[in-house]
Amino acid sequence: MKKLNSSMQLTRAADYAIRVMTQLAASKTEERISLPELARATGAPESFLSKVLQTLTRAGLIVSRRGQAGGFRLTPRGGKATMREVVEAIDGEILLNICLFSGRSCPRKTRCTAHPVWVKAQEAMLKVLSGAKISTLAAKR
Amino acid sequence: MKKLNSSMQLTRAADYAIRVMTQLAASKTEERISLPELARATGAPESFLSKVLQTLTRAGLIVSRRGQAGGFRLTPRGGKATMREVVEAIDGEILLNICLFSGRSCPRKTRCTAHPVWVKAQEAMLKVLSGAKISTLAAKR
Repeated sequence: MKKLNSSMQLTRAADYAIRVMTQLAASKTEERISLPELARATGAPESFLSKVLQTLTRAGLIVSRRGQAGGFRLTPRGGKATMREVVEAIDGEILLNICLFSGRSCPRKTRCTAHPVWVKAQEAMLKVLSGAKISTLAAKR
Repeated sequence: MKKLNSSMQLTRAADYAIRVMTQLAASKTEERISLPELARATGAPESFLSKVLQTLTRAGLIVSRRGQAGGFRLTPRGGKATMREVVEAIDGEILLNICLFSGRSCPRKTRCTAHPVWVKAQEAMLKVLSGAKISTLAAKR
């Protein structure tokens, strides 16, 4: 039996965030969707999804309203978001290797011949995720 | 200050494994390199590197000999290894998202429009890592 978790893997929170953003993108513009409804549609536990929704709100991708007719909907920015933006809103900057961290120069960079390969691998992956709009995922369903 | 660790990140062990494989590939065929020498060359702590070397040995990528003239060298298979093979020897199968795990079908797969994007992102990344031979990294230094 192979192990299910590996390194280089998306968090479950980011996976749920993509599901929930897609769900919101598939609904009518002015409609607000409640937490229980979103939990049902995404298969995420409500308590966990609640934290994911908080982070997406702080990131400006969704807005919430309390009360009877309350719930969540996308912001205009959220409506244009890509899979990369949603993942990064939850997990932070995507870095396949720590040597790609932009804020810190790797001391081995100049002589490390693996570094340019990591740059290329990361670029190839990010190109796909940056090209995948949540609105397109919603329209395809 | 952005955080240094993100999801989707290579383990430090796999990073050291690539360094040590490149170091061994750069040395003469019959030469064996000792643990302290490898630790110095890769900047990895000896005790940690020792575990990485054990895993690479079990994976058939390197061999070790004990004693005075002992040390590590690549196996013929190790000499042909790619970055992908070295990472997977340490971290297991690379899976950007758990939904890509080949041994288990995701129940949401048929209606999840993000799934094909993850497949594409993973393929793009693996293509780069599968194309990067350790021997080429060693020759470029």
